[in-house]
Amino acid sequence: MIPQRMTLVTLGVADVAVLRRFYEGLGFRAAGFDSEGVAFFDMNGVVLAVFGREDLAEDANAKLESGSAHARMSLAINLESEAAVDAAMAFAAGHGGRVTQPARKVFWGGYAGYFADPDGFLWEIAYNPFWPLDADGRPQLPPPTRP
Amino acid sequence: MIPQRMTLVTLGVADVAVLRRFYEGLGFRAAGFDSEGVAFFDMNGVVLAVFGREDLAEDANAKLESGSAHARMSLAINLESEAAVDAAMAFAAGHGGRVTQPARKVFWGGYAGYFADPDGFLWEIAYNPFWPLDADGRPQLPPPTRP
Repeated sequence: MIPQRMTLVTLGVADVAVLRRFYEGLGFRAAGFDSEGVAFFDMNGVVLAVFGREDLAEDANAKLESGSAHARMSLAINLESEAAVDAAMAFAAGHGGRVTQPARKVFWGGYAGYFADPDGFLWEIAYNPFWPLDADGRPQLPPPTRP
Repeated sequence: MIPQRMTLVTLGVADVAVLRRFYEGLGFRAAGFDSEGVAFFDMNGVVLAVFGREDLAEDANAKLESGSAHARMSLAINLESEAAVDAAMAFAAGHGGRVTQPARKVFWGGYAGYFADPDGFLWEIAYNPFWPLDADGRPQLPPPTRP
């Protein structure tokens, strides 16, 4: 079996420098040991890597396809309240984020919006009353409701 | 500023049931409160969500584009040794994973391979001697080498 863990999320992007500046603009601090070709951000339990898309495709021995499919992926940041979501969405919109879905009450009982980063990757900013955050900002998943 | 954290990685997939079975086949245990439309896996600090790709696009108010771009995204699992990487790659290959890059020594000094899940999303299985794993399996990033 494979250990149930995730340690990195890598975004293959057209211009690493542009994306590094964007994330630093959101207030993220890069790990500081990276290079022009890659930026790492310690995201409190999982690491975000921003890497050239051709480099990523080469490393994975995978073909870059001609189309893009940004809607196939989103990365989420859960916050403590609806007000915190509004503040974060406004901050993102003011720092190069393109809002695709303004924050609103959603069908699952929370409150969330989406913005796209300069490369088109989608970030969801969410308040989920059913997933309380612990002191480290990690969501506490509810217990199973079925075996 | 936006808190520097990532709490979910969502994969928008063609068939949630197929992907749920695949990940459960790797040994991952679903959170147990999910539904036919979405599966959640607590990945030790970050949550993996498997969601319908049309549902994700609708939720994000984003257009699904005709092409796919799986090479734009990879998700990583760091393990404790080269032998553990080999074992995990073999396990994945035997449980529906399509190996795109057999594990090998890589330019950054580690050892890693890639496989694609049934939807085409890429997973990297890696041993990184420069990122020791703590008791919880979380990589300990080295300190900054520049301010």
